[in-house]
Amino acid sequence: MNLFRRFKQGNLPLGRIEAFSDGIFSVAATLLVLDLKEISLPENPTAANLWHALVLQLPKFLSWLISFIIVAKFWLNHHHVLRLAKNADYGMVWLNSIFLMFQSLVPFPTALMGEHPNNPLAVGLFGVVMAFNTLLFMLLYSYILRNLLDPEMAGAEDPHVISKSFIGPLSYLVGAGVAWINPDFSFVVYLITPLFFITPVHRKQNCSPSNH
Amino acid sequence: MNLFRRFKQGNLPLGRIEAFSDGIFSVAATLLVLDLKEISLPENPTAANLWHALVLQLPKFLSWLISFIIVAKFWLNHHHVLRLAKNADYGMVWLNSIFLMFQSLVPFPTALMGEHPNNPLAVGLFGVVMAFNTLLFMLLYSYILRNLLDPEMAGAEDPHVISKSFIGPLSYLVGAGVAWINPDFSFVVYLITPLFFITPVHRKQNCSPSNH
Amino acid sequence: MNLFRRFKQGNLPLGRIEAFSDGIFSVAATLLVLDLKEISLPENPTAANLWHALVLQLPKFLSWLISFIIVAKFWLNHHHVLRLAKNADYGMVWLNSIFLMFQSLVPFPTALMGEHPNNPLAVGLFGVVMAFNTLLFMLLYSYILRNLLDPEMAGAEDPHVISKSFIGPLSYLVGAGVAWINPDFSFVVYLITPLFFITPVHRKQNCSPSNH
Amino acid sequence: MNLFRRFKQGNLPLGRIEAFSDGIFSVAATLLVLDLKEISLPENPTAANLWHALVLQLPKFLSWLISFIIVAKFWLNHHHVLRLAKNADYGMVWLNSIFLMFQSLVPFPTALMGEHPNNPLAVGLFGVVMAFNTLLFMLLYSYILRNLLDPEMAGAEDPHVISKSFIGPLSYLVGAGVAWINPDFSFVVYLITPLFFITPVHRKQNCSPSNH
Repeated sequence: MNLFRRFKQGNLPLGRIEAFSDGIFSVAATLLVLDLKEISLPENPTAANLWHALVLQLPKFLSWLISFIIVAKFWLNHHHVLRLAKNADYGMVWLNSIFLMFQSLVPFPTALMGEHPNNPLAVGLFGVVMAFNTLLFMLLYSYILRNLLDPEMAGAEDPHVISKSFIGPLSYLVGAGVAWINPDFSFVVYLITPLFFITPVHRKQNCSPSNH
Repeated sequence: MNLFRRFKQGNLPLGRIEAFSDGIFSVAATLLVLDLKEISLPENPTAANLWHALVLQLPKFLSWLISFIIVAKFWLNHHHVLRLAKNADYGMVWLNSIFLMFQSLVPFPTALMGEHPNNPLAVGLFGVVMAFNTLLFMLLYSYILRNLLDPEMAGAEDPHVISKSFIGPLSYLVGAGVAWINPDFSFVVYLITPLFFITPVHRKQNCSPSNH
Repeated sequence: MNLFRRFKQGNLPLGRIEAFSDGIFSVAATLLVLDLKEISLPENPTAANLWHALVLQLPKFLSWLISFIIVAKFWLNHHHVLRLAKNADYGMVWLNSIFLMFQSLVPFPTALMGEHPNNPLAVGLFGVVMAFNTLLFMLLYSYILRNLLDPEMAGAEDPHVISKSFIGPLSYLVGAGVAWINPDFSFVVYLITPLFFITPVHRKQNCSPSNH
Repeated sequence: MNLFRRFKQGNLPLGRIEAFSDGIFSVAATLLVLDLKEISLPENPTAANLWHALVLQLPKFLSWLISFIIVAKFWLNHHHVLRLAKNADYGMVWLNSIFLMFQSLVPFPTALMGEHPNNPLAVGLFGVVMAFNTLLFMLLYSYILRNLLDPEMAGAEDPHVISKSFIGPLSYLVGAGVAWINPDFSFVVYLITPLFFITPVHRKQNCSPSNH
């Protein structure tokens, strides 16, 4: 098909793709702070009033922390994956842009979860969005591995990296499901999930000889 | 004229022009999420309340998605066009800055369309702004082709690329006009239009031999 | 003095200074759109309601346009001036950061002027802030010319560039003063002033032989 | 331990780490202006109304100024420290990301302090957050010195730089404590503290021969 072939064209250098991506990662991560500033206080709050309001905000702080860690984790893995590519084609640019679109969405489910920490839909939606983000990232990852892999980097990659990555969306969806039983558990699941990919996944296997 | 000659001067490297542009593209694209966060809910919403509010927000989500795709499309074409230039002069810097000015405006008509999806003026304005953005981009494009084209890149360009690009603003204006009949059709037109330029337009012609 | 000597140290490459600056320029320029989104409309506005509200917003659109042009003009001149430096010392970093601080302030007087276009203090403050911004930029400019000038770039500089630049703050202050007579005139002055430096000022003199 | 070893892996180039960091620094610094725009005015304010409102905002302006200076100071020291590293490992990436997380938090305590300048908790919290930010930065600094130091840069570093840096968090905490006696003193302490590190700390010692 013609459209399919068009996406295989391009041969773009990676510099501006990284710049656009880093812009969206950093703006999305920094916009998260805007939620924290929406704090309801009486007219001339005493220290006790403010302390009380800050304690009530704890779920917002936790949502902020979880989301920042997740965005930072995606950024690190994105950094890793783009280094595997020797260049970009239009297909990769669009898989990347669609991934970034949902990365820029992160402040929305974060705000919902932080403001309504006992609402199972608000808390569950966060997990669904993060699962979807992870799937989009895996799509970008596998596209690069199959189409754009720099031969020099090929040896370092675990061939099973994509199938192993399914643990990520699965775990987020478990967190989303648990929200209907006890949303507090979801927060724990969401906090633990990014730790699976706290460093790019393939390195552990690849470097296993030197790790023993 | 003296002013005209001044704009032909400069001989600037492209690095910071790309950085400033990528900054505006990525901030504009990420600010779009702020609209989604403005969701009206009762005090302690149930999951059903939230679900209802999210469904009512569907036009906002659609506006967000359309605008992100359009900004990402402009970014990709901008990336393509700047690679054709061997350097920049002040004329190009200002055509670029005026294009970026209206690119940074995108969150405004997006918000209007998302909040008032049945208001023909709100929906129509979106198309007018996008048509204008496309015209500004074409102006930048043709300026680079005529004045700053890197000789090494010249062969790859379709000489009719600018005239072919008029389909873009035309289509957006059709979408804007249709808003006065049925705004839902406009959403469809706005969603389809960026697909014409989902990959830089000239490549198809340029590479046609290898495409058959 | 010890502090003075500390500021002469550093020998920093310019890359990250440009990146930090471009970040602030592009975020400040893009945040300007947030004002436009604050539009007061009835519950379910008709096209006529929206049209009326948009017409009332004209001073906001004009303020947005003026500020974007001014930020883009500062960015271009900043680009020009940093190219004159062979590297940076801590003194330049801080003059740059203080300039950027007041550059990042631009959305504030822009919002005041756009919302209160008939208030002489709101309109006048815009001119005062822009005059101050220009003075800070001139300070950075002259510091680079005297301390960090790349010998290869030295010949291209007009030695009187700084004294000629005083026309900028002067013109902004005239605009600010005129606000107490008729704020509409101030908008005109603010629109014209950046045109003096629409291209870096020294080039005209430098290149005068080839301009005749 | 396996996790520990994973963090020692990576061997990442610094370019994108700097880009992500500069993005967060510049967005956080520029978002500070949003507080200033939240100014309460009567319907059609006179110049006197606006003047009065601006004077009441003085603590907000001061908070904005202090925070911008602090972010710019962190950025400069971050620039300095990353130049000492020959590359990055995953441990450094995460220390950097956690530092950036709390850097992106700066607009929150800044807004609280600016809006409630007489509330000892609001003013004290600012100092606690800044002390914590400085500690996180020192952690990143010492990690780089111990693990990633570029041999060419090693000689320029004061071996006591980390222990000398404790003056920073200490001073912020003094400012936080003083808020319970007189919050005005805290503003003074917060304004003075970044001046200790207005230039990267080690240079003074390193270059002492040429300073006499």
